[in-house]
Amino acid sequence: MESAFIAWLREHLPSHPQLHLGPGDDAAVLRLAADRDIVLTTDLLTDGVDFRLHACQPWQIGRKAVAVNLSDLAAMACQPVAVVVSLALPHAGAAELARALYHGILDIALKYDVAIAGGDTNTWDGPLVVSVAALGQLTARGPLRRDQARPGDHILVTGHFGGSLLGKHFSFEPRVHAALLLHQQFELHAGMDVSDGLSLDLSRLATASGCGAAIALEAVPIDPAARELAARATDGRTALEHALSDGEDFELILAAPPAEAERMLDQQPLEVPITRIGQMIDRPGLWQLAADGSLEPLAPCGFEHR
Amino acid sequence: MESAFIAWLREHLPSHPQLHLGPGDDAAVLRLAADRDIVLTTDLLTDGVDFRLHACQPWQIGRKAVAVNLSDLAAMACQPVAVVVSLALPHAGAAELARALYHGILDIALKYDVAIAGGDTNTWDGPLVVSVAALGQLTARGPLRRDQARPGDHILVTGHFGGSLLGKHFSFEPRVHAALLLHQQFELHAGMDVSDGLSLDLSRLATASGCGAAIALEAVPIDPAARELAARATDGRTALEHALSDGEDFELILAAPPAEAERMLDQQPLEVPITRIGQMIDRPGLWQLAADGSLEPLAPCGFEHR
Repeated sequence: MESAFIAWLREHLPSHPQLHLGPGDDAAVLRLAADRDIVLTTDLLTDGVDFRLHACQPWQIGRKAVAVNLSDLAAMACQPVAVVVSLALPHAGAAELARALYHGILDIALKYDVAIAGGDTNTWDGPLVVSVAALGQLTARGPLRRDQARPGDHILVTGHFGGSLLGKHFSFEPRVHAALLLHQQFELHAGMDVSDGLSLDLSRLATASGCGAAIALEAVPIDPAARELAARATDGRTALEHALSDGEDFELILAAPPAEAERMLDQQPLEVPITRIGQMIDRPGLWQLAADGSLEPLAPCGFEHR
Repeated sequence: MESAFIAWLREHLPSHPQLHLGPGDDAAVLRLAADRDIVLTTDLLTDGVDFRLHACQPWQIGRKAVAVNLSDLAAMACQPVAVVVSLALPHAGAAELARALYHGILDIALKYDVAIAGGDTNTWDGPLVVSVAALGQLTARGPLRRDQARPGDHILVTGHFGGSLLGKHFSFEPRVHAALLLHQQFELHAGMDVSDGLSLDLSRLATASGCGAAIALEAVPIDPAARELAARATDGRTALEHALSDGEDFELILAAPPAEAERMLDQQPLEVPITRIGQMIDRPGLWQLAADGSLEPLAPCGFEHR
């Protein structure tokens, strides 16, 4: 990338207490709290799949690229520390686009107190690609895993589901603080973030934990955006179907023992509601839990990467 | 990505002593040696710029994507620990291409004892993009920085330069072990890896250190590939010009006090030769050092990212 952009970027990168040696050398040096395991993840966004460059603001893309990684760190209930950002920019207007992307990147990094520890800014003949890797540090409570749910656990979720395409897929808040707080104050057996659809991701959590999951469909918290999509009736799907399958909600699914679940529901310690939507069961698979306690199979539905 | 590929990948990912919780959850958990700072870097390769998919083997691309990141870790003289790998694959033949890429990725990860801690495998309408982020851990000697060279330091390099396009840009060995060994056994003031061209990268090291660099051109170790390119005379450049500017050598430039430089040259502790090519000077900029000690300006030349 042109040196004017690099100079601009260095000027705009905030300092961070854990960033011991920042961008400018071959790699960044980070100082961590002693004796804590670290968490590493990566997500790559491409034009036409995760966003459409000509139908949104570039800062929204930059923000989203960092936010989806922070959501993965939240799913482990760890404290975000740093990100590195790699860009493949179309030649035309590359420097301008890079600056616009970084407005969103810098904004969310500041909000979640994450160091931008480095990056690689390239131009090429292809469409825009934004790749981020994120580093977090576990608390003394260890990781929130997705494979430790047990039959009998209640299934809780944060926030509302469905219709993210109307805006939430850009504007969502990664549940970093929520996950840290809940993991600290309650006994959670398992958790993950919902990126590909509530029913699909819950079925994954159940499979990883070697059990099944039963959802009381009437309990699923439906986002107003899902109702709006259903009202438009473009594809005949109901608001509930949108909530179960749309994906990019970036809310948390949690499995907790009943007494802890009750305590969480009573206290409602988050800015967003916590809702109980069902329970983990012995029988493998995903199920619809009727009012009379009977189970009907439920097809996991969501975004499957081709 | 299709679940068959994910299953294949999980089967082929080797375990690693520091990988506490591997791919399968939302993120990986790594256990580090206590009280050591970590190093984080990222590099993204695109079709048409860093490789041409139809003119090479996909495993070479996978290997290179990891190797360039390891070279950045080597430049800091740290111990590589883990990488995460994000792919944007063209739709047609995506799973087959992903497997082929991973053959190279797995091979070099095993060779350098690096955990593959996670990844994000996507398909899209665009050409191939491979983005890697790498994590390393510093030794008790701290980082090898590029901004601490001092006037009077001798400038040393590993290996040979130029003509990497004939093969070395795929087959190079990142100087991980060399950097760790030299940083441990000798007093080094500064160091970096050569990715964009010997003269350009040396001028960057000099600028970062607030001094200048003078090269004895006759001392520059020229790679046979550079001589071959010059013999083809496609663009009239001499073998030396190739050595000074081609880039993707992924050798080390080091600045060391004269006595330490002498000791390194005497001992030659690496599998590749260490060569003295000049010295750091007070006068800013890049210079050609004549046999009589006089200085002529030398234009830094190499690959500038647009």
